[in-house]
Amino acid sequence: MKRYIVIVAGGKGLRMKTDIPKQFLCIAGKPVLMRTIEAFDRWDSNAEKIVVLPKEQFDYWNELCQKYSFSISNLRIVPGGETRFHSVKNALDTMPTEGIVGIHDGVRPLVPAQVIDECFDLKPGEYGAIPAVPVTDSLRQIDASGSHAEDRSRFRTVQTPQVFDLRTLKAAYEKGLPTAHSFTDDASVMEAAGHHIKLVEGSCQNIKITTPTDLLIANAIFEQNNAACQK
Amino acid sequence: MKRYIVIVAGGKGLRMKTDIPKQFLCIAGKPVLMRTIEAFDRWDSNAEKIVVLPKEQFDYWNELCQKYSFSISNLRIVPGGETRFHSVKNALDTMPTEGIVGIHDGVRPLVPAQVIDECFDLKPGEYGAIPAVPVTDSLRQIDASGSHAEDRSRFRTVQTPQVFDLRTLKAAYEKGLPTAHSFTDDASVMEAAGHHIKLVEGSCQNIKITTPTDLLIANAIFEQNNAACQK
Repeated sequence: MKRYIVIVAGGKGLRMKTDIPKQFLCIAGKPVLMRTIEAFDRWDSNAEKIVVLPKEQFDYWNELCQKYSFSISNLRIVPGGETRFHSVKNALDTMPTEGIVGIHDGVRPLVPAQVIDECFDLKPGEYGAIPAVPVTDSLRQIDASGSHAEDRSRFRTVQTPQVFDLRTLKAAYEKGLPTAHSFTDDASVMEAAGHHIKLVEGSCQNIKITTPTDLLIANAIFEQNNAACQK
Repeated sequence: MKRYIVIVAGGKGLRMKTDIPKQFLCIAGKPVLMRTIEAFDRWDSNAEKIVVLPKEQFDYWNELCQKYSFSISNLRIVPGGETRFHSVKNALDTMPTEGIVGIHDGVRPLVPAQVIDECFDLKPGEYGAIPAVPVTDSLRQIDASGSHAEDRSRFRTVQTPQVFDLRTLKAAYEKGLPTAHSFTDDASVMEAAGHHIKLVEGSCQNIKITTPTDLLIANAIFEQNNAACQK
């Protein structure tokens, strides 16, 4: 079945205390978003890659592509929407019905190929798979009296790519439109439409870059992986 | 009020794929546990520091102290117990009743002084404060049918030091002894004894070192902070 990757890069950069949206900050001298696209291109250069970007960043992106001589086949850009939900839906609306699609955060450039593989390995009767990792710190839930301890072994934090049967995901996004603001990821859109989601093993390297410390961490992991490759 | 720090270093090193317990792996050339002790010594050299270590690691620790010429005043070592609960209780049993105590993970060497300060700032009527940070990834809870999405904005992950009125904590540990295995941190011991815990703002740099990637990350953060100090 044809494979698609939707890379969502909607960041406005506010949390990084900088005017550059975080997807354009550099890891080892190249913008995060390019590193993310390259991770999927290395995984499968034939997969169709759709990058969702705020419309006002299109010109800047084109300048960056020239500056870095960045050229990837099977890549196109679509404009983002008001929320993450609307951004993903904009991409889905440009896509056919048949296929399997991974939705990925533009600021997760270090996703290992093995994690992508396992997510895309949907068996008959499975409509979605997402990478998850155990919670290593103690976990608390906010409540009316302040907060209370939760048993962290019963929780998982979720990464991307979140991978789905394309037809089923498109239908779930249509159904979810009236409550678009309540979803933080694609798996919850699918669940709200009544579908079961499989958890596969994520990776501690598959971090989301949201703070300056995350960028520092990503650089360290990238350099180490690169050094390991060159051995 | 007199201030105490209990540093719990019970790691056997299994998750690091190495025979060296993770508290003895090096950050910028010095064992993690020494870096952790130094963080508290810089914060308040007069605070009494009690390190809990498995008894079979005492000799190795003494060798390391000689090798690194490591000498910190107001520091003593007590033997660990069967679980984290028993390790902390072993330390508490050697301490007086009056005071304020911070319980800290031996493998969190990067705790900022400001986080320690805020935790130790207990107001009248407050018996405990712990540092917490928002959950940045989507969160799921395991259930009978697999898992379901949770609203991550209602959750916090918890770091250390967890700081308490010493008398109250000692009583809570006595009370919790029959269900020792059910606690993953000190705040939950206090809550089981009926006490309210205050959340203060943690730090994304205050990571717990449990995997090789964490060690790499800690090195990167340490080097950056060091460079910033020397400017």
